[in-house]
Amino acid sequence: MPGTPRRRGGKPSEGQPVIDRAFALLGAFDSDHRAQSLGELARRSGIPRSSALRLARSLVQVGALERLDDGRFVVGLRLLETASLAPRGHGLRAVAMPYMEDLFHVTRQHVLLAVRDGGEALLVERLSALDAGPVRYRVGGRLPLTSTGVGLVLLAFAPTAVQDEVVAAYEPAQGPDEVRTPDDLRRVLAEVRRGDHVFGRQGRPWPVSTVAAPVRGGGEVVAALSVVAPTTGFADAGYGPAVRATARAISRRLEEEGRRAGA
Amino acid sequence: MPGTPRRRGGKPSEGQPVIDRAFALLGAFDSDHRAQSLGELARRSGIPRSSALRLARSLVQVGALERLDDGRFVVGLRLLETASLAPRGHGLRAVAMPYMEDLFHVTRQHVLLAVRDGGEALLVERLSALDAGPVRYRVGGRLPLTSTGVGLVLLAFAPTAVQDEVVAAYEPAQGPDEVRTPDDLRRVLAEVRRGDHVFGRQGRPWPVSTVAAPVRGGGEVVAALSVVAPTTGFADAGYGPAVRATARAISRRLEEEGRRAGA
Repeated sequence: MPGTPRRRGGKPSEGQPVIDRAFALLGAFDSDHRAQSLGELARRSGIPRSSALRLARSLVQVGALERLDDGRFVVGLRLLETASLAPRGHGLRAVAMPYMEDLFHVTRQHVLLAVRDGGEALLVERLSALDAGPVRYRVGGRLPLTSTGVGLVLLAFAPTAVQDEVVAAYEPAQGPDEVRTPDDLRRVLAEVRRGDHVFGRQGRPWPVSTVAAPVRGGGEVVAALSVVAPTTGFADAGYGPAVRATARAISRRLEEEGRRAGA
Repeated sequence: MPGTPRRRGGKPSEGQPVIDRAFALLGAFDSDHRAQSLGELARRSGIPRSSALRLARSLVQVGALERLDDGRFVVGLRLLETASLAPRGHGLRAVAMPYMEDLFHVTRQHVLLAVRDGGEALLVERLSALDAGPVRYRVGGRLPLTSTGVGLVLLAFAPTAVQDEVVAAYEPAQGPDEVRTPDDLRRVLAEVRRGDHVFGRQGRPWPVSTVAAPVRGGGEVVAALSVVAPTTGFADAGYGPAVRATARAISRRLEEEGRRAGA
């Protein structure tokens, strides 16, 4: 969990470091490490083995972790239950999903919904057909802001301070071929704001193109929606208008829900 | 989080009670209480206000909670990131989703995927069209085992001890009209095992029918898949074979993935 303040080794006053350590343990799980032995957990979280065992047992007790028959630990189902209440995750998703279904129905391509979390994007939903080309993105996973359609949209509408930081740290290898310098990136972001969408193309991992558009709630950009599809035939397929219209439909529903909640 | 051992008020030795209390605080959120003031959080979790504030601040620091501009707390996006790694949640979902898409594409009705957690079912995924009838189920939410199609399938293939407990506690008001007694319920469960699927009908909240079938992985029933649709026209639409075929397709893929992971 980048950007999370850690106070490892701090004095265990008032119990906060226990929570820090518990979430450091949970943070040791990622898509390449879904099931881990105690030793792996201790090593990857930087928590001493005996302490990690106590923490892991407590987390099993509350259902945040589950233990497999072979003794390894996995993230527990009950964490999903609580996490599903995150307004910026499943709350947004619940509103957007039927519209994303329709977009998927029309395009049969990858349909992505992402939100910004600090200097990265987090994938809230992805719809993909069985025969769609491979993409590396998984729900709950992170995407770079500078090399994905949804990322560029989220960055273009992020607070100036976030934009400045990401632009200053920009390295060409991260982004599309035609965005070589921080100034190029600034120009792209201005274009995204002007056109209210972005079109992007990449050669890796296969010739793929994307159109992404902002989703607004409460007057602010709260998410980005995109279609990712093979570059061949992309322009003729009319994905751009479909994505932009759907993003606006989701925004309209979010504004309605916001007014209802505020009333 | 029913069934979770709680040690509220226990001696704060070795830090475990801090984790208990932290998850009690997280457990105070539900679909009707997605944003809560400190006072609400303290009241609903049973944790003293000053202690709840310290815990909530710690949880904000690690990203498990976020604080709104009005001071209320909501579940944080980073919890979704960790929760998405739960093999029984998003792991299963990742395999099942393309098949569920296809089933949804064919039926345009509610498509549900649920797993069992103790004596309840937990909804892992739901696909619904914009114009589909209302259902009360939300992703990450809990469903009763005795009054839903997915629940009856999960119960029918649950360990005997779980079945005995649920059957013993069964009250007719919980289930379909024709299941009046624990013995009726046992008979239904035997039928589900024999037929490898269940058909159910309910008058509330609207005349709705469902077909549910088991999803298997590693030789065991790991989830249940269903279509929920208006009772009118249900039988003629052929949802039954569609659900059963799709559940088998997901099972086949899960077994393949299991063999690959075990190799």
